[in-house]
Amino acid sequence: MPVYKAPVNDTLFVLNDVLGLERYNNLPGYADATPDMIEAIVGEAAKLSEEVLFPLNYSGDQEGCVRHDDGTVSTPKGFKEAYRAYREGGWLGLAVPEEFGGQGLPYVLHCAVGEYTSAANMSLMMYPGLTQGAIAAILVHGTDAQKQTYLPKLVEGSWSGTMNLTEPHCGTDLGLLRTKAVPQGDGSYKISGQKIFISAGEHDMTDNIVHLVLARIEGAPEGTKGISLFIVPKFLVKEDGSLGDRNPVSCGAIEHKMGIHGNATCVMNYDEATGFLIGAENKGLNAMFVMMNEARLGVGLQGLSIAEIAYQNAANYARERIQGRSLSGPKAPDKKADPIIVHPDIRRSLMTIRAFNEAGRAFLLWTALKSDIAHRSPDEKDRQAADDILGLATPILKGVLTDKGFEHAVMAQQVFGGHGYIEEHGMSQYVRDARITMIYEGANGIQALDLVGRKLALNGGRAVMALFKEIGDFCEENRNDEQMAFYTKHLKKGLNDVQAATMWFMQNAMAKPDNAGAGSTDYMHLFGLVVLGYMWAKMAKAAQAGLAAGDSAREDYLKNKLVTARFYMERIMPETALRKARIETGADTMMELAAEAF
Amino acid sequence: MPVYKAPVNDTLFVLNDVLGLERYNNLPGYADATPDMIEAIVGEAAKLSEEVLFPLNYSGDQEGCVRHDDGTVSTPKGFKEAYRAYREGGWLGLAVPEEFGGQGLPYVLHCAVGEYTSAANMSLMMYPGLTQGAIAAILVHGTDAQKQTYLPKLVEGSWSGTMNLTEPHCGTDLGLLRTKAVPQGDGSYKISGQKIFISAGEHDMTDNIVHLVLARIEGAPEGTKGISLFIVPKFLVKEDGSLGDRNPVSCGAIEHKMGIHGNATCVMNYDEATGFLIGAENKGLNAMFVMMNEARLGVGLQGLSIAEIAYQNAANYARERIQGRSLSGPKAPDKKADPIIVHPDIRRSLMTIRAFNEAGRAFLLWTALKSDIAHRSPDEKDRQAADDILGLATPILKGVLTDKGFEHAVMAQQVFGGHGYIEEHGMSQYVRDARITMIYEGANGIQALDLVGRKLALNGGRAVMALFKEIGDFCEENRNDEQMAFYTKHLKKGLNDVQAATMWFMQNAMAKPDNAGAGSTDYMHLFGLVVLGYMWAKMAKAAQAGLAAGDSAREDYLKNKLVTARFYMERIMPETALRKARIETGADTMMELAAEAF
Repeated sequence: MPVYKAPVNDTLFVLNDVLGLERYNNLPGYADATPDMIEAIVGEAAKLSEEVLFPLNYSGDQEGCVRHDDGTVSTPKGFKEAYRAYREGGWLGLAVPEEFGGQGLPYVLHCAVGEYTSAANMSLMMYPGLTQGAIAAILVHGTDAQKQTYLPKLVEGSWSGTMNLTEPHCGTDLGLLRTKAVPQGDGSYKISGQKIFISAGEHDMTDNIVHLVLARIEGAPEGTKGISLFIVPKFLVKEDGSLGDRNPVSCGAIEHKMGIHGNATCVMNYDEATGFLIGAENKGLNAMFVMMNEARLGVGLQGLSIAEIAYQNAANYARERIQGRSLSGPKAPDKKADPIIVHPDIRRSLMTIRAFNEAGRAFLLWTALKSDIAHRSPDEKDRQAADDILGLATPILKGVLTDKGFEHAVMAQQVFGGHGYIEEHGMSQYVRDARITMIYEGANGIQALDLVGRKLALNGGRAVMALFKEIGDFCEENRNDEQMAFYTKHLKKGLNDVQAATMWFMQNAMAKPDNAGAGSTDYMHLFGLVVLGYMWAKMAKAAQAGLAAGDSAREDYLKNKLVTARFYMERIMPETALRKARIETGADTMMELAAEAF
Repeated sequence: MPVYKAPVNDTLFVLNDVLGLERYNNLPGYADATPDMIEAIVGEAAKLSEEVLFPLNYSGDQEGCVRHDDGTVSTPKGFKEAYRAYREGGWLGLAVPEEFGGQGLPYVLHCAVGEYTSAANMSLMMYPGLTQGAIAAILVHGTDAQKQTYLPKLVEGSWSGTMNLTEPHCGTDLGLLRTKAVPQGDGSYKISGQKIFISAGEHDMTDNIVHLVLARIEGAPEGTKGISLFIVPKFLVKEDGSLGDRNPVSCGAIEHKMGIHGNATCVMNYDEATGFLIGAENKGLNAMFVMMNEARLGVGLQGLSIAEIAYQNAANYARERIQGRSLSGPKAPDKKADPIIVHPDIRRSLMTIRAFNEAGRAFLLWTALKSDIAHRSPDEKDRQAADDILGLATPILKGVLTDKGFEHAVMAQQVFGGHGYIEEHGMSQYVRDARITMIYEGANGIQALDLVGRKLALNGGRAVMALFKEIGDFCEENRNDEQMAFYTKHLKKGLNDVQAATMWFMQNAMAKPDNAGAGSTDYMHLFGLVVLGYMWAKMAKAAQAGLAAGDSAREDYLKNKLVTARFYMERIMPETALRKARIETGADTMMELAAEAF
């Protein structure tokens, strides 16, 4: 049977030892987040994840969601009750301002908690996950009245939210979208059209569903410049806040998917449904991107979550499964065979996943901290600098943590041999669930293009230069620290590669943009390798500081950090040279064939 | 809707232009395989695959197999009829000696055909696929009477075969197996025990099922030295060849798997079932390895098959799906957007898969030719040399073509964006089906260990030295050929890396075997990259010969081969340096953590 144990110690190591969260108590909400408070919160989240959410993960996958003839949708057995426990714990509003019913705590804590809950039950957590996106969009772009009408209900979780972008003929290229909005003269619009792939589009967990829908106002320009964002509630909301008429928006079908069976992925039909403009007319994409950017961090988080639960189960299996003998002689001579964890090739898999997960967790929380600074710091320069890094890091975090999350779920499944292919062991579900993270909220090829085509050059390359400088300075500062030399040597090599690749784009992609597209995925991974390497160097430094301070209770724990850091530097980091070499071959061979020749 | 078109031209290019099959007409069966005959056979196989097998692939996955309360198993609708068409076409016996009802044609042709049929319907083709293994084992190890009793029925396909190795507590480590065999004094044995993961263990397609079962004769030594192989037919066979009593071997359950739903993967219970020893007492593993080695080639073939069908569907989708504009300006200005095949990142995926598939096909058929030479050549030296390469190539072919086959099915699925995650498009099935190929017939970690731990050192490294020499000679011979310089330069670099890694093992793994285990998977892939690079160099040479000969009908086709060869050399081959670097870091970091620390 699958198991899950929230990695509380690792979270606390990153928050306290690596990021030094207490140093940020000038930020709103951070003063309340004392080390004790943080430990209590992640401890509670761990309990909820392990005891309430996780036990429904496998059954939710097996049972799936059911759409009934009247268009209602039932979620798997137990989901409603588990969702209630989640929302009654106040988890939805953890980082939402107190004036709308939230707790105003750091977003970094929200992400720490989110890793556990998504690992325990990704399908279930998508329902409140979509609500988070709706909250973010309404917070930034809603009118005061919209905020008052929708936010408290969304934050308490009695209503949920959705994002409606995709149509059958358009996903990435939203300029093609056809859903139309006809103004009614009273400030409202009639929305008509079909949306597909709508996660949590219809379900039985909340009293109301607040759809955020991209549509084109009649007469608006073609392309992306004529798209507006609308709030389309399932039940219209009366003046007094109570629920009124059922809006003609309905679930036409639920998709038959490879995974995340516990989440209802809906075809949504809008048949002159009443909607309300949010944000400026024809500026819908801007408003949607507020949701999108937060959602992308949330998807990167899911990649980490699934890789972590897959890792834990593989490690358990490797300790328990008795098969064959160690190459260096029996390790369990009293038994008929050794546990397979004695085999180097099994350890290669476990160490690889572990090295990515620990660095991925640090990268996620480091990025979330940037988000807090960007949104909460009183210092404008700090805000801008953090926002620069946040924008740069988002596509890397989404693309790399999900590509690797899936790859490592597969690697963990492999540890089980044939048993990994049988659904009952749960590994297949992790692989099937993880697969969607590479696709939704912008397929990873789009993340790579966002990075290379937009984020690199933004503001004259300010963000990328700042990050290269930060990493370079770290190497420089630790140059004479003997204990750090091994890590900074490898990190510096990776940094050189990503800088060279960046330079190559500057010299070769201006005149020939295909050269940027051809190298974009390699560049995203190259950058990811370096950022994760930077996280490992920071973690190695923190571990050494802990050891030097005589932290005997964590001595083994901290030493294991150093071993894993070494593993990452030795075996993973050298991939930067390959990625750079590929980028430098450019687009020629891949563009040469005629389309019909494929 | 998914599509499949058998890549007949690519098969013929490899057989005729690259391998020059007509040069081998000294081998039995090859004289009959004239170019016209070959073209006719692969053409017929293409038709069967496209028109009969493929239309049942998706429905078979959706419907799956059903075990009834009486232990019988129904296969998906249409499978029985399609199987009948397959067996009536004589495909099972294509390469089986004529004396047992086969056609005695080259095994290389059997593999060429197998690629198409497995691509079209892998689950369905596993039923006769297991029969092939049984035929191979009985051909080599059976008594004359056993051959007469079983082979004609297996070859005509009215009976099918299975391999019964795995038990709940043992898979890789067969020394642990417990199924027991009690001699009855009349030459027969009573077999009792439980086997799991038995593909095609029970079904409704054939009159009888011939189970080949590993078991331990009462009183036999423990471990692998006490294992024997038995024939246990579902229905006992009377003297006159007709079917007698039902043997007490039954399907207790069918597994609930991630994929290959159309194949019945059974728990088989043997309850004093009558069995007949095949091969020598306590030498069952040897006999089983005859089936296993052939099965491993068959699984590598499946990896290629799925990557090919996934590629074809991704290429079609990329040509048809209209989304966004080319980075270098609109390519379909009359439409609202360009087909996504204009995007370099999409082409990167397609070219990567294509480059592996074309080289993988060449590698498969090249290896199959070695098998024919090893088994059919009148010259003992030729037989031995070919057998050496066959043994070395088998784990590489199995491990690399399935790891890459799965990876590329995922890559092809990604081209579909969200639509790839919906079952109806078929891409999810390819991914789920391909996943098993990395696991069964020896998980790929075991293939890597077989390569590094057994095949490298066999006969003083004779095989590996011969292959390195063959590739080195090829580079040398073409050194002054300007048109080949680009390819041989990259190939030589890869060859140097694999030679250096081999040397590193010799120097570092004797005293410390964990160093071999730690590098084994990287070595398998390093070797695979070089062998596939060698195939590309040979294909480039053949394409240039065709162009030089003024083959105008294939001019574009041959030029595209050269582009793809260049792509492989530039973008894929540099991975050898990374693999070598990883191997050279050894086992230390991965063995350092205590098992409890994972």
